[in-house]
Amino acid sequence: MSDFVCHGDIMYSETVEKLKVCEDSYLVVQDGFVEGIYETLPEKFQGMELKDYGRGLIIPAFSDLHIHASQFVQRGVGMDKLLFDWLNDYTFPQEARFASMDYAKNVYDQVVTELLRQGTFHASLFTTIHYDASDYLFHALADKGMYAYVGKVNMDMNSPEYLCETTEESLKQTERFLAEHQGKGTVQPILTPRFAPTCSEPLMKGLGELAAKYHCGLQTHLVESLAEVKWTLELFPGYGSDAEIYERNGLLEHGPSIFAHYIFPSQADLDIVRKAGSVTVHCPDATTNITAGIMPAKALSEKEIPIAMGCDIGGGQHAAVYRQVARAVQLSKLKEFYEPEGNGRVTFAQAFHMATKAGGSVFDRVGSLEKGYRFNALVLDGLEDAGFTLSPEERAERFCYGGDDRNIIGRFIDGKEIVLPE
Amino acid sequence: MSDFVCHGDIMYSETVEKLKVCEDSYLVVQDGFVEGIYETLPEKFQGMELKDYGRGLIIPAFSDLHIHASQFVQRGVGMDKLLFDWLNDYTFPQEARFASMDYAKNVYDQVVTELLRQGTFHASLFTTIHYDASDYLFHALADKGMYAYVGKVNMDMNSPEYLCETTEESLKQTERFLAEHQGKGTVQPILTPRFAPTCSEPLMKGLGELAAKYHCGLQTHLVESLAEVKWTLELFPGYGSDAEIYERNGLLEHGPSIFAHYIFPSQADLDIVRKAGSVTVHCPDATTNITAGIMPAKALSEKEIPIAMGCDIGGGQHAAVYRQVARAVQLSKLKEFYEPEGNGRVTFAQAFHMATKAGGSVFDRVGSLEKGYRFNALVLDGLEDAGFTLSPEERAERFCYGGDDRNIIGRFIDGKEIVLPE
Repeated sequence: MSDFVCHGDIMYSETVEKLKVCEDSYLVVQDGFVEGIYETLPEKFQGMELKDYGRGLIIPAFSDLHIHASQFVQRGVGMDKLLFDWLNDYTFPQEARFASMDYAKNVYDQVVTELLRQGTFHASLFTTIHYDASDYLFHALADKGMYAYVGKVNMDMNSPEYLCETTEESLKQTERFLAEHQGKGTVQPILTPRFAPTCSEPLMKGLGELAAKYHCGLQTHLVESLAEVKWTLELFPGYGSDAEIYERNGLLEHGPSIFAHYIFPSQADLDIVRKAGSVTVHCPDATTNITAGIMPAKALSEKEIPIAMGCDIGGGQHAAVYRQVARAVQLSKLKEFYEPEGNGRVTFAQAFHMATKAGGSVFDRVGSLEKGYRFNALVLDGLEDAGFTLSPEERAERFCYGGDDRNIIGRFIDGKEIVLPE
Repeated sequence: MSDFVCHGDIMYSETVEKLKVCEDSYLVVQDGFVEGIYETLPEKFQGMELKDYGRGLIIPAFSDLHIHASQFVQRGVGMDKLLFDWLNDYTFPQEARFASMDYAKNVYDQVVTELLRQGTFHASLFTTIHYDASDYLFHALADKGMYAYVGKVNMDMNSPEYLCETTEESLKQTERFLAEHQGKGTVQPILTPRFAPTCSEPLMKGLGELAAKYHCGLQTHLVESLAEVKWTLELFPGYGSDAEIYERNGLLEHGPSIFAHYIFPSQADLDIVRKAGSVTVHCPDATTNITAGIMPAKALSEKEIPIAMGCDIGGGQHAAVYRQVARAVQLSKLKEFYEPEGNGRVTFAQAFHMATKAGGSVFDRVGSLEKGYRFNALVLDGLEDAGFTLSPEERAERFCYGGDDRNIIGRFIDGKEIVLPE
């Protein structure tokens, strides 16, 4: 692997609330990792290949911890429908089609290309109940060197007949998925019970046993809406909270636990998630589109609950997770407007952290450009108007509020430059 | 002017709530107007030039009734700031620079190009207090054949010293602007008191006299936030509502009246606006960014208050008004979530109407593709994924939720195809 130096403006999250900006600086890449950032390039690096991006802005590649890969082709349509009509008219029939491998290959190839295009190189993805299709996505992501978790979905109750597994078959196919894919590189399998209402207690218990056997993490939806919370507790009468279902069944002990939405946590949900070191996922557009509510992101952050970001295709309409950075700031303003008690504004710096370093925390040294992190990075350009200059933070902010993939002029994974598929 | 026929899928708003869709149809353009739409092309038109867009989607060009042209270069930056810091740190210093014509030309040329790029061919724009810069924007829009209102801004109180006019000078320059630009074509001058708190009663009275003398309309901000409503009524103690200030000073009688935001109307504001036939302007991103609140769009629509759409650059972050179509649907869901009493969801069809036909209503026969309307239109493409087809409504919806200017493959004004400036 060749080593090199990038010159430009460099920005990454130092902490949850603080951006580190190095203007007009040199970033040294060695063996695919960030060796260091320098205002003046030290003499020992002066012979290395120099990629000079001028006023280009070098940032970490994005991390997106909640994507329904199978719903990619329904993004941004049918958004007038209420949740259950949307699921029954679009989502479930769509997911059923992943029994066909031709269908799965077409969709999942498009997903991988779009994630690369939008600069999301670290992702946690739901597929469907289908083993072969899930296997295909796993390898498609691995082939590009992406950092990802892929979960074959479990559903053994309260699901359309044509998408409902038996408990036994669900566990069998899940174990096969773990056994075949565990420990194979930058992509890892993850347990993916769709959400508590579609998974019986015996299924949850069985998944907990697989978690222990294969040292595997969990992704699911948690306390997404008031209706979901109520329904879940009716379906699981022995449990005191949504999170307790996963805790008591042993799903939080053997790998990262990733909880999407997390809008209405009870004190028990907070305690369990904090104890387990789980990561929650803010999906602003999606939870608006399905009228779930607004995540209390600022309040959660003050309680030291980790928050990552998700585009949540197809509840969300676009794969660009950087747009969710802007949306998280916007929704926090509305949250504060409507529920001032205990809520506050999310800053751009905090939202950027969610979509980079926080999401990256479930992988190995990705999501930042600090020394020792992998050089998984983007170069942004074209964010200033003719005759005007903006600070690096302002350029990053404008990109998240109104930029698009044309502003991404460089893409790197493990120090290797990525060329987009045609 | 050459006549021609366009073939493709055609969609426009028939009423506030209803889209008209003509799949696989022929639209005949004669003398720059829509002659008709046909499933089979009548024999008498068969010799005309045919532009075949296949599955391309032909829609009306967009109408945007609230743009601060002078704030273009600050879009999408500084969004963490509270309104008054944002105004004082970004907006006002920025607006002051329009005293320089070099500066104004650079910014306004970029604005015009961006509006054409985003398919907004009908617009109502604020400039600044400066006569020469406002004159330049007026002619830049007219040169492209756009349909527009341009208003030199009035501010004679509660404004930074460097942006504050005397009442006399404000009226003098406004009269000059009206006299020089009235009746000159597709672009028209419009009275533009910034908002009531920055305009004294004598200024409002003088503007009312100019409205009568020059048969001129009005654009301003109305009942934008609870703080603004309170402040306005304190500053105008003899008035019972924000709208009454404009009514009693004779500003609603001589042309269209365009009221941006309109989030907190009192009964008097509703009565006055309905009586005057005013158009309100929904600016979803901007009123979120400045934390004003959410326009009660569904409730206003049920009260038969006309609602157009605005990108509200620079409170809004992007000139693409079609994105505000999606945002209007999204915000109506949050409005209903937080204020279920009397509020409801805005459908995609309603939001599309706001950004096309409703906004177009203040101009002459633009914003629809019904017979007799000007052929001011866009052709959209690239909205389907490989291997999938979407209905015309779904393609339009996806465009508004996640599309961009690359999806606009044809642009027409008065039947003439527009080539974007380099």
